[in-house]
Amino acid sequence: MLSKQYEIEKIIMGRLSYDADLLEELTNFCNKNNIKTGWISVIGAVKNIKLGFYDQKMHQYVYPSDEDFVKSDFKKQNPELPDYEISSCMGNISIRDGKSFLHLHVVVSDRNGRCFGGHLMPGTIIYAGEFTIQVFKGEELVRGIDNETNLPLWVE
Amino acid sequence: MLSKQYEIEKIIMGRLSYDADLLEELTNFCNKNNIKTGWISVIGAVKNIKLGFYDQKMHQYVYPSDEDFVKSDFKKQNPELPDYEISSCMGNISIRDGKSFLHLHVVVSDRNGRCFGGHLMPGTIIYAGEFTIQVFKGEELVRGIDNETNLPLWVE
Amino acid sequence: MLSKQYEIEKIIMGRLSYDADLLEELTNFCNKNNIKTGWISVIGAVKNIKLGFYDQKMHQYVYPSDEDFVKSDFKKQNPELPDYEISSCMGNISIRDGKSFLHLHVVVSDRNGRCFGGHLMPGTIIYAGEFTIQVFKGEELVRGIDNETNLPLWVE
Repeated sequence: MLSKQYEIEKIIMGRLSYDADLLEELTNFCNKNNIKTGWISVIGAVKNIKLGFYDQKMHQYVYPSDEDFVKSDFKKQNPELPDYEISSCMGNISIRDGKSFLHLHVVVSDRNGRCFGGHLMPGTIIYAGEFTIQVFKGEELVRGIDNETNLPLWVE
Repeated sequence: MLSKQYEIEKIIMGRLSYDADLLEELTNFCNKNNIKTGWISVIGAVKNIKLGFYDQKMHQYVYPSDEDFVKSDFKKQNPELPDYEISSCMGNISIRDGKSFLHLHVVVSDRNGRCFGGHLMPGTIIYAGEFTIQVFKGEELVRGIDNETNLPLWVE
Repeated sequence: MLSKQYEIEKIIMGRLSYDADLLEELTNFCNKNNIKTGWISVIGAVKNIKLGFYDQKMHQYVYPSDEDFVKSDFKKQNPELPDYEISSCMGNISIRDGKSFLHLHVVVSDRNGRCFGGHLMPGTIIYAGEFTIQVFKGEELVRGIDNETNLPLWVE
């Protein structure tokens, strides 16, 4: 088990832009502001959601299809209204390929309260979003490919 | 994109009261203790849940009905036992109309593990609840009505 | 309502071990490192999940069965692949019976994005896991049995 120790440098609270890509806007913000290590949470609402699921046998990400989401009554009845609440979104900031990299997992909820969750992918579009970033100071946390899982995990 | 920078002033951990309204008790606590900016998380169990979902076309909140929740086997079989775990609850504290205002999103789970989520509304009643509040110091974050979404979002 | 005030002592970020029991590895880490009060979040993926649900009438934990999870198309179609994303996992550290005790709630998601949640139990096995621990300093928070709920809640 790997662990590293940090101090809190500062907190940033903010509001994401209407129509922004959730992952892209936060990633750009961290890179522009030199935020290399930290923790993030987001709540809000999205106009579209893109989730990933890591297939532990195939060693690759797969994606719930629209057909899976159609099982939600909401989308079946309102195909033109793919809006969801971000009921939970949290994760961390560390370094991958020399840049600030955000690893966020998300749970979204539809009009009937039903939840869908997974790894946050590009393509998740903000309707309204409020984030809190805890910025840490200390030794950089860096991702490299892990042999066992084929995932970009933190390495010594 | 709007963002403001804060320092951590203190942390408060605590236990909510049996039969309290989750949103009301935390809001009163923040107002009484002059907590104007912060981040909150809660885990626990509730005796009743009231969720909101923001209809992005209608520009107003709608509410999953009891009928929607009935699709959960648990409530169908046990209508007199509407208890749920709070599997995730998190959000922020800022100022609205001159007072401390909490914006919390929640995921609850029923006896079969199935999840319902959304915007936390008054009417969610505590069975047991444990909260952590991070209190921030810095410039106030104030909500005003956003023209694009008709939501009370943070303004410059 | 009970509440206590803390300062942040430090932050620890780390990576859980492949095949570790999520709750056991984090609990051992806190006890070994003398972490008595804090807040934790985890994201990642698990090879198996064990959830608890507190029956508020029976005053005891019950557990979603495999049959409940089978309602997820994924497990029905892939009984040999019980992998889930940890879409949300958060909770607190306090003292119970003189030791560091972790109370964590979790939401996991399957291949179709569908979510299951509840109280994290031993038996939840890590595929990949990234945690953030906020370590607090201040008066110890201690659990004792609460008469009303029969739960080990924080006492004065």
